Amino acid sequence: MHENRPGTARERLLAAALDLFAEHGVSGTSLQMIADRLGVTKAAVYHQFQSKDDIVLAVIDPALSRLGPIADHAEAQRGHVARRDTVLHGVVDLVVEFRKVSATLSFDPVVMRLVRAHPALRSLQRIRRLLGGTAPDPGSRVRMAVLSGGLMMAGADPAVIRLDDEDYRDHLLAAARRILVR
Amino acid sequence: MHENRPGTARERLLAAALDLFAEHGVSGTSLQMIADRLGVTKAAVYHQFQSKDDIVLAVIDPALSRLGPIADHAEAQRGHVARRDTVLHGVVDLVVEFRKVSATLSFDPVVMRLVRAHPALRSLQRIRRLLGGTAPDPGSRVRMAVLSGGLMMAGADPAVIRLDDEDYRDHLLAAARRILVR
Repeated sequence: MHENRPGTARERLLAAALDLFAEHGVSGTSLQMIADRLGVTKAAVYHQFQSKDDIVLAVIDPALSRLGPIADHAEAQRGHVARRDTVLHGVVDLVVEFRKVSATLSFDPVVMRLVRAHPALRSLQRIRRLLGGTAPDPGSRVRMAVLSGGLMMAGADPAVIRLDDEDYRDHLLAAARRILVR
Repeated sequence: MHENRPGTARERLLAAALDLFAEHGVSGTSLQMIADRLGVTKAAVYHQFQSKDDIVLAVIDPALSRLGPIADHAEAQRGHVARRDTVLHGVVDLVVEFRKVSATLSFDPVVMRLVRAHPALRSLQRIRRLLGGTAPDPGSRVRMAVLSGGLMMAGADPAVIRLDDEDYRDHLLAAARRILVR
C-alpha cells in the first residue's frame, strides 16, 4: 500500500475515498477506483468494507455522530436565544472541522439517501427545530434553507478554502447570525 | 418514446436526465439509464447527443446563458448599491426559475468541471465582483460563499419545495440582503 499519507490503512482508505468522491461524486466512484488510488487490490478494499455504502457511512459517521450531542447540549439551555446560540456554535464548529466532508457529501444523492435512513436524521430535525422553531413561517423556512445550504457548501468555495479554521469559524458564525437573528 | 411528459423529444430527454442526475448524481447516470427511463434505445439518445457531457451542458446552458446579461445589466447601473441590487434580483430570479437544476447540479463534481471550462465562468466571476467587490476581506469572502451555497441549494430543501415561486423569490431576496447588507 502507498505510504504517502499518514494514518492507519483504514484512515488512508477513507481519505482516498473522500478525494475520489469530491472528484467524481459517490455514484461515479467505484471500489476499483479506490483500490487503484491506494495501489491495492479490490479484495483488499473488500477486506475492510463490505460495500461502497459502508465506506460512505464510515466517512460521514464522525460528523453525523456529533449532531445528537449538539442538540442535547442546546436543549439543556434555558431560553430560545441561548438554545439557538448553542446550536449555531455547535453546527459551525462541525462544519469547520469537517469542511471537506460537508462540502463534498452533504448534497450528494447517495449520501442524502443514506442520511434519510440514518438515526442521525432525528438529530438533524431537532437541530432545525432549535434554530427555526416548531412552526416556522415561510420566511423562516427559506432562511433556514439558505443557512443549511450556505453553511454546508461554504467550505468548498475556492475564495475561502485557505482561511484558517479560527477565522473561518468566526466569519461563518457572523454570517449565520445575520441570516437568523433579526 | 413514452408520451407521459409534454414537450419535444429533446425536452423529454433533458427532463429525464435531470431526474436521474438528482437521484444518482451525474457520474452515476449512464446514457443507458436515460434511454431506459424514456423507453428508447441508447442509439436514440446518441442520435440527439454525442455524450453525457453534451446532455449536462444542454441542461445547464439555459441557466448559464443568463449570467452574462445579468452582469451586463448590473454594470450599466450607477453606484455600488444599485449594481449589487440589480445582481441580487437577477441571481435570485435565476435560482427560482431553475431551482431544480440549481440544487441538483451546482455542486456536482462533473458540472463543476464543465463550468470551469465554460465561457459562463467569466460572467460568474463578474457577478461575484459585483456582489463582493474587487478586493473582498475574509469576512466578505465567507459571506459570499455562504450566499452562493445558500442560494443554490435552498431550492432543494424539503421545507421550501412547496412555496410558490413568488413567495420563494421574495424570501430568498430578503435572506440574501440579510447576508450582504450591513
